[in-house]
Amino acid sequence: MTIREGNQEDLEDALALIRELAIFEKAPDAVENTIEDMIKDGFGERPVFEFFVAEVDGKVVGLALYYYNYSTWKGRSLYLEDLIVKEDYRGRGIGKKLFERVLLKAKEERVGRMDWQVLDWNTSAIDFYKKMGARLDDEWINCRLTKAQIQHFEG
Amino acid sequence: MTIREGNQEDLEDALALIRELAIFEKAPDAVENTIEDMIKDGFGERPVFEFFVAEVDGKVVGLALYYYNYSTWKGRSLYLEDLIVKEDYRGRGIGKKLFERVLLKAKEERVGRMDWQVLDWNTSAIDFYKKMGARLDDEWINCRLTKAQIQHFEG
Repeated sequence: MTIREGNQEDLEDALALIRELAIFEKAPDAVENTIEDMIKDGFGERPVFEFFVAEVDGKVVGLALYYYNYSTWKGRSLYLEDLIVKEDYRGRGIGKKLFERVLLKAKEERVGRMDWQVLDWNTSAIDFYKKMGARLDDEWINCRLTKAQIQHFEG
Repeated sequence: MTIREGNQEDLEDALALIRELAIFEKAPDAVENTIEDMIKDGFGERPVFEFFVAEVDGKVVGLALYYYNYSTWKGRSLYLEDLIVKEDYRGRGIGKKLFERVLLKAKEERVGRMDWQVLDWNTSAIDFYKKMGARLDDEWINCRLTKAQIQHFEG
């Protein structure tokens, strides 16, 4: 198993994994992202995300996608947006290796903190993150406006 | 009252407001950020945040600080990191004007979604966000590693 930086040619595999995760998270229709958008957002003039892939026998079976965000308290930070391992390849420590690779990147970049989210019913992920020393917060509520709501706003 | 884009000269006022919010949020010692870091992160080679300020009589009394993040489902999105109005100036609709300015920016940039967080005991903010149509989520748990934890990680 190899962990390596993702490149433009990996985006098709990455998006397939993202779709797989959406099904696992019970939101199969939520993925509106396309390969074209991912090329622009990840490899265009101003890339907004980076990622690592896990490869087994030359096949991409895992993804860790992250970006840099900003904390007014701690400064430039790292946000782990997605950590995915293909269903048939779970239970082999691939997710841990991907997570640790991102953690190493966070260390190299000397970021102010590293954040991510987990679904409250995903107990195996919660246990793993706790074992990694993460603090799980129960005080902040996430708020969201959708693209449709935003576009309907009359300023 | 004027809402305008923040510039480098506003950073001192912005940081003062950030410290005021940290006290309100019962974490007065959490702000490790400095003016020097904010200049680098906001106005350096690769700016990671932008902000609007609210001005009354030439004095900065409000701040809305945001950055672009990335959703693997919805693409490039906007994250509102901080929305602050100086205590003496609350209750005049300044926060609403700042929020709407950011929302307009989100619309102009055609982002995939707009996210932010609110403390579960901040009922007046929660009411306001609900009135703006926001969906408040109770399914995702926030996870975090601190800078100290990250730096102690041995890859």
